[in-house]
Amino acid sequence: MKNKILVEVSARHVHLSKEHLEILFGKGYELTIKKPLSQPGQYAANERVRVVGPKRELSSVSILGPVRGSTQIEVSLTDARSIGVDAPIRMSGDTKASAPVKIVGPKGEVDIEEGVIIAKRHIHITPEDAEEFGLEDRQVVSVKVDTDQRSTTFSDVVVRVRDDFATAMHIDTDEGNAAGIFGEQYGEIIK
Amino acid sequence: MKNKILVEVSARHVHLSKEHLEILFGKGYELTIKKPLSQPGQYAANERVRVVGPKRELSSVSILGPVRGSTQIEVSLTDARSIGVDAPIRMSGDTKASAPVKIVGPKGEVDIEEGVIIAKRHIHITPEDAEEFGLEDRQVVSVKVDTDQRSTTFSDVVVRVRDDFATAMHIDTDEGNAAGIFGEQYGEIIK
Repeated sequence: MKNKILVEVSARHVHLSKEHLEILFGKGYELTIKKPLSQPGQYAANERVRVVGPKRELSSVSILGPVRGSTQIEVSLTDARSIGVDAPIRMSGDTKASAPVKIVGPKGEVDIEEGVIIAKRHIHITPEDAEEFGLEDRQVVSVKVDTDQRSTTFSDVVVRVRDDFATAMHIDTDEGNAAGIFGEQYGEIIK
Repeated sequence: MKNKILVEVSARHVHLSKEHLEILFGKGYELTIKKPLSQPGQYAANERVRVVGPKRELSSVSILGPVRGSTQIEVSLTDARSIGVDAPIRMSGDTKASAPVKIVGPKGEVDIEEGVIIAKRHIHITPEDAEEFGLEDRQVVSVKVDTDQRSTTFSDVVVRVRDDFATAMHIDTDEGNAAGIFGEQYGEIIK
């Protein structure tokens, strides 16, 4: 059975609803693709926004496309503390009663009442790979990452199985930096 | 045998030599104590400095006293990347060929040729506690931290035994945030 998985570090980013995209960039505006991401159909856009908290702002934050049903801002706990936002650790999409923030674009700004989260560690995996790894949707596992000076085992990692995923673990920049991850890194799944 | 240890998160800070303190704050200047730290005789000073990298600066960085034989700047990997400094992961005091940076105080500034490090995870422990825990100086262990959503096991943790230590593990803000540590936290030592 396989147990080695690619570990990808996600930098802070924003997903926008169509409505918010148009407020920030103008009526009828469409995101332009800078770089495709590992998850099929997802991309980093050329467009960027400012994320303004009560204490400080994050300038030039990436937008990931395509647009989604609702706006979501994913930051690290370091970022959240820096800008003064009390964001919960959540799975993507679970933004109910998460933190508010202001997003500023070239054509307008929008006050988001909820939407700022710190992404919970997770594994994206295809049904075929899940079978080969012996994993099930929503299973919680640990992943051990061996690095030069900061080897780390991440527990509380949630497995998500979906047809349209590419198989990879996602952690944020605090987690990547805590484990001293530079460049391509694989981890060992521990059940 | 004991195996639970207090885990303390160290924010970015600077240790100054007497020479650099006087360049930054004026001839004959002495640090004033804001708050004693857990390690005996160590304190956070009221005085602060700017740490200026090639890309960006960290404003208002804490100085820890008393003065030391040489200046050392301890930042997180997130900080190092943010200000554009390529700092190595090192034990405190091991600053040979570490990263350069500029430090700016109210009375002057100094270009440090080496001294910026990312602190390697470590445990401070008294000889008495080391015996009770069954640990030796320079032993490398793992420490498991159980938190609500980000339980994490830190490996590559270096044990340092000294008479004038208070027993505690020290990690940086990336590591603390990666593990979701808020407030008082204990970890389990795994040998």
